[in-house]
Amino acid sequence: MDTQVTLDTIWVLVAAMLVFFMNLGFALVESGFARSKNTVNILSKNFIVFAVSSLGFLVLGWGLMFGDGNGFIGLKGLFMAGGADNSPAVGEAYQGVYSAISWTGVPFWAKFFFQLVFCGIAATIVSGAVAERIKYISFIAFSFVLTLAIYPIVGHWIWGGGWLSRLGFQDFAGSTVVHSVGGWAALAGVLILGPRFGKYGAGKQITAIPGHNMSIATIGLFVLWLGWFGFNSGSAMAANPAAISHILMTTNTSAIMAVLTSTAASWIIIGKPDLGMTINGGLAGLVAITAGCAYVSVTSAIIIGAAAGVIAVLSVRIFDVARVDDPVGVTSVHLVCGVLGTLFVGLFSEESVAAANGVTGADGLFYGGGVTLLGTQALGVITVAGFVFAASLLTWTLIRVTIGMRVSLREEVEGLDIGEHGNQAYPEFVIRRPSIVAELAVPKKIEK
Amino acid sequence: MDTQVTLDTIWVLVAAMLVFFMNLGFALVESGFARSKNTVNILSKNFIVFAVSSLGFLVLGWGLMFGDGNGFIGLKGLFMAGGADNSPAVGEAYQGVYSAISWTGVPFWAKFFFQLVFCGIAATIVSGAVAERIKYISFIAFSFVLTLAIYPIVGHWIWGGGWLSRLGFQDFAGSTVVHSVGGWAALAGVLILGPRFGKYGAGKQITAIPGHNMSIATIGLFVLWLGWFGFNSGSAMAANPAAISHILMTTNTSAIMAVLTSTAASWIIIGKPDLGMTINGGLAGLVAITAGCAYVSVTSAIIIGAAAGVIAVLSVRIFDVARVDDPVGVTSVHLVCGVLGTLFVGLFSEESVAAANGVTGADGLFYGGGVTLLGTQALGVITVAGFVFAASLLTWTLIRVTIGMRVSLREEVEGLDIGEHGNQAYPEFVIRRPSIVAELAVPKKIEK
Amino acid sequence: MDTQVTLDTIWVLVAAMLVFFMNLGFALVESGFARSKNTVNILSKNFIVFAVSSLGFLVLGWGLMFGDGNGFIGLKGLFMAGGADNSPAVGEAYQGVYSAISWTGVPFWAKFFFQLVFCGIAATIVSGAVAERIKYISFIAFSFVLTLAIYPIVGHWIWGGGWLSRLGFQDFAGSTVVHSVGGWAALAGVLILGPRFGKYGAGKQITAIPGHNMSIATIGLFVLWLGWFGFNSGSAMAANPAAISHILMTTNTSAIMAVLTSTAASWIIIGKPDLGMTINGGLAGLVAITAGCAYVSVTSAIIIGAAAGVIAVLSVRIFDVARVDDPVGVTSVHLVCGVLGTLFVGLFSEESVAAANGVTGADGLFYGGGVTLLGTQALGVITVAGFVFAASLLTWTLIRVTIGMRVSLREEVEGLDIGEHGNQAYPEFVIRRPSIVAELAVPKKIEK
Repeated sequence: MDTQVTLDTIWVLVAAMLVFFMNLGFALVESGFARSKNTVNILSKNFIVFAVSSLGFLVLGWGLMFGDGNGFIGLKGLFMAGGADNSPAVGEAYQGVYSAISWTGVPFWAKFFFQLVFCGIAATIVSGAVAERIKYISFIAFSFVLTLAIYPIVGHWIWGGGWLSRLGFQDFAGSTVVHSVGGWAALAGVLILGPRFGKYGAGKQITAIPGHNMSIATIGLFVLWLGWFGFNSGSAMAANPAAISHILMTTNTSAIMAVLTSTAASWIIIGKPDLGMTINGGLAGLVAITAGCAYVSVTSAIIIGAAAGVIAVLSVRIFDVARVDDPVGVTSVHLVCGVLGTLFVGLFSEESVAAANGVTGADGLFYGGGVTLLGTQALGVITVAGFVFAASLLTWTLIRVTIGMRVSLREEVEGLDIGEHGNQAYPEFVIRRPSIVAELAVPKKIEK
Repeated sequence: MDTQVTLDTIWVLVAAMLVFFMNLGFALVESGFARSKNTVNILSKNFIVFAVSSLGFLVLGWGLMFGDGNGFIGLKGLFMAGGADNSPAVGEAYQGVYSAISWTGVPFWAKFFFQLVFCGIAATIVSGAVAERIKYISFIAFSFVLTLAIYPIVGHWIWGGGWLSRLGFQDFAGSTVVHSVGGWAALAGVLILGPRFGKYGAGKQITAIPGHNMSIATIGLFVLWLGWFGFNSGSAMAANPAAISHILMTTNTSAIMAVLTSTAASWIIIGKPDLGMTINGGLAGLVAITAGCAYVSVTSAIIIGAAAGVIAVLSVRIFDVARVDDPVGVTSVHLVCGVLGTLFVGLFSEESVAAANGVTGADGLFYGGGVTLLGTQALGVITVAGFVFAASLLTWTLIRVTIGMRVSLREEVEGLDIGEHGNQAYPEFVIRRPSIVAELAVPKKIEK
Repeated sequence: MDTQVTLDTIWVLVAAMLVFFMNLGFALVESGFARSKNTVNILSKNFIVFAVSSLGFLVLGWGLMFGDGNGFIGLKGLFMAGGADNSPAVGEAYQGVYSAISWTGVPFWAKFFFQLVFCGIAATIVSGAVAERIKYISFIAFSFVLTLAIYPIVGHWIWGGGWLSRLGFQDFAGSTVVHSVGGWAALAGVLILGPRFGKYGAGKQITAIPGHNMSIATIGLFVLWLGWFGFNSGSAMAANPAAISHILMTTNTSAIMAVLTSTAASWIIIGKPDLGMTINGGLAGLVAITAGCAYVSVTSAIIIGAAAGVIAVLSVRIFDVARVDDPVGVTSVHLVCGVLGTLFVGLFSEESVAAANGVTGADGLFYGGGVTLLGTQALGVITVAGFVFAASLLTWTLIRVTIGMRVSLREEVEGLDIGEHGNQAYPEFVIRRPSIVAELAVPKKIEK
């Protein structure tokens, strides 16, 4: 057996398993940050979104993303990942229709499984933003469209040999491909769905809706952090010792700096170090380093993480003032910091760092490369934004006018757990919901 | 150092660690699905069962399972894993008394540790079925017998060079060896133990007893799912790139299909997509693919998982109607789907798939192999059922007549946490137990 | 690419990720064992301590620990891990200023990341002992000093080529370097900080303060156990198949024996098998085997674990009677069993076992080596104790007289979550705090 193939396969599969585990992390951050009455619904969404995205990616997504085609979509080997492929052959020896991913010398199913769990992450990101008021079936429907078509098409542009990759756009592990795609889809959903009942009052009144379980949310961040080591280092799709060591360090360094600066920022701005801000700060640091983890130095990772932590805290407040109700902070963490991380590559990227990690890179603005790379990164950010936001708006709108998008006001107030699932997450615990009476008192006449 | 030995050892140990982690998954699914008053007891059981099974397997189990002997039990190197062994030597070069497992080229303790955590899983499966009324000491005693003798003997038949393996019985990662063994032992326990107080009333009255913490149960399934990647791919006991990639895909595909079909089935049958059914469905899909994960195609895994998800939902209802009170659904998930998965090998197995994965396989009924393999699989299912069920009935009966099996009715009503452990899981939270007063009002005269 | 470098890097990084995950384990054991009103504070501490220690170790700690220098501290390549280094070159080929760790053939950042997460564990150990009354900022300050200087200096003595390592002191994975260092720092903190309000009354009255969430604490132990496999086997810093297999077995065997004996001990002493004792027992078994995991046989691991389980239970009671208020049992688990494990090496170590695992060892007292090794181990225990305890007392005292160390009595009674963070962990759940009224009634006049 070829030793290098085995080494690379071990690393890719270990990484893929860690990325799979991130589904737990997202489920817990989302449910911990939401109210107990919607917990079963949130947990259910996180199971079903992975199942739906796995099926969607198998049925069509993989082919659209990695199948040989034109600069915009894959056209060969579209269905059921069924095209010709002689992996783990690479380079000249490769024969098949998935050329764009033939650079990694691992068996076909290893490539597929790693990309599959990535697709799942993009879809699960959406879940948190639309939480606490979306219909279960409508979320399932959107997830299917996202993973069947929207995500794979953007993926083709950047990782599937498409037009952005040919221009030199750099996104090592997916600040754009995964996080901003999920973020734009989420933002479109939130705008169509509207805020949760009771979130925004008359004038400038904003009601804080605290999460019901910080222990669960904390487990979520630690699991995501662990999973991110696989997410970023696995994107090497090879067990290059220098690269995977370097990537773990840049990833961790950005995350710890963002934990420190988000905690400090909330201490300064709010007056106390808010745990929710620490958690979202950590996530922001992880998202922001994702695009550049193999291209930037550990020292740059310090700056990237420090910036992301502060920006996430500010962004959460800005979205709240703008009345974009995102219960979990998805737009701040995944969208804003996904964009930020992509642009940071244009500033902090170093050709020498990339070369030491065995990948092709370019110098960013701060390392003598001028604005070329930064411009390409900006172009990618803008075009991905335009496509994903438009496609998502269209999809959400179609869902809204057909099967509907939002649960009834009464169901929203009583909780989606009973309404959508007939379950309760904590049936024995006495729950205090002082706001329910007030909520129910108001809207009788506007109830659907 | 021999490179292939190192590669294989890395994979086996990574897999073994993941399988160890499944103990957490079982602890959480079981405790989440049970009532808060029994949480400490359930968590304690899950620690102690792994400790007891590790000791039992070291003291005698390993030798009975893998020691050279006859077709029914191992007879050499029985105690303390103390027989001669020159692992990682393989084939002709191997010298020792554990020939049946000399095909894998990893050090002795790597083989042992991987098999040890497998044994632990078989024992922990029993825990969920007898939950909420079994005495702590009685469960410990049964676990010791199961892992010291019952599990290893069946293991010898199938993985230790025994009579079933010689007939060509196929169970790659243990749908029968682990899951149905645990399932039959659990069923015997449930039948002797009887249902929980208040579960079944007069006539056809069945009281649903909802689990106390769906967040905890959800963590449980994700941890089990992750662990299962190790469980199935580690059973290759080698880092064969094609095999481990293929196995992760069949495993994941079966699980996601079962999540989809169990959710859909509960939506259709109960009227709403019940989270408990989604969780048990996912587990059912994982159990069902375990026997065939290296022998069947990804397409077959779609069918296997889809079937398992539906059958698990139906099975839970059938056992309930039959008044077999299994709080966690162990019999439906591990027994029914363990049997199912074993038989599915007789239908979906492909010699070519097995060969591509570096293992010996045969064609099943649907791939031109006729009924030979299916017949052997059925024979294995039946004989394992007979032996394990009989041995378990005997063991449980001996325990019942000596140290007793069930806590007092008062303790059962008040909760095993106080009665068995003097602890509470959530001492600060206000718990609502409306049923307790009613429960206590009834049975005064029948209390032991 | 050099195959052995890749193999070793894969193992070191997998292990490092598992050690990182231990931060979750510590966060959950600590918060589960404490009261709900301090949960947010505990979770926050566990995030921030990892961030602070990562930064401190990068800024200076690594250089002090592994930089070339004298027998007491490193003097070269001190800041920002910035010294010359041509890793993964080893032996004669190595050129750089971190010679003490040049024996492992992995890239620089792999060495660094593995040691970084170790440093983080030492710091997080302190958190549990000072829980429920320390100011957030004061804990952050101490963590920074510990990881910037105290931990690295001891580390230099033992793993950085310093005076203890030259004497033949043996601590394979850190019973002393990590666990007793954390334990002594914690003990110093507890002595200066004093017990929690209400813990000790007049005369011999001791109030048990039960943990608020045993499910969370249980997740904590399983996560720590999993992480410990990486902690101990990763300390080989190479993928030596025999060594890593052996280490997983000694580690697991010690842990399961300690689970059994601590459960039995609490059953005998308290009258019931207390889950808290089972959990702390398991941890004690893991701490105690850490120093000797590569030097002792699996049979010796049985004895070591069995002893640790009993001693942890007794130690918790002794510290309680001595009025050393340690909410989580850190001193019993990490300090007492860290010392114990270090001394056990002097008894159970076998040169032949070490040799089979590819490391240099010596025979302990029970294997014909006389008292030489035991004496060296004792010397190490005493000198590390003296240095860490004195340095920690000084640091804690400086913190106390400058920024203060303890929250106000009112804040302590009301909970640090509100006081320090303005958050609640479970805002919707109805919490029962019968003791609060009594607590508040007493201390009005002594309140700060």
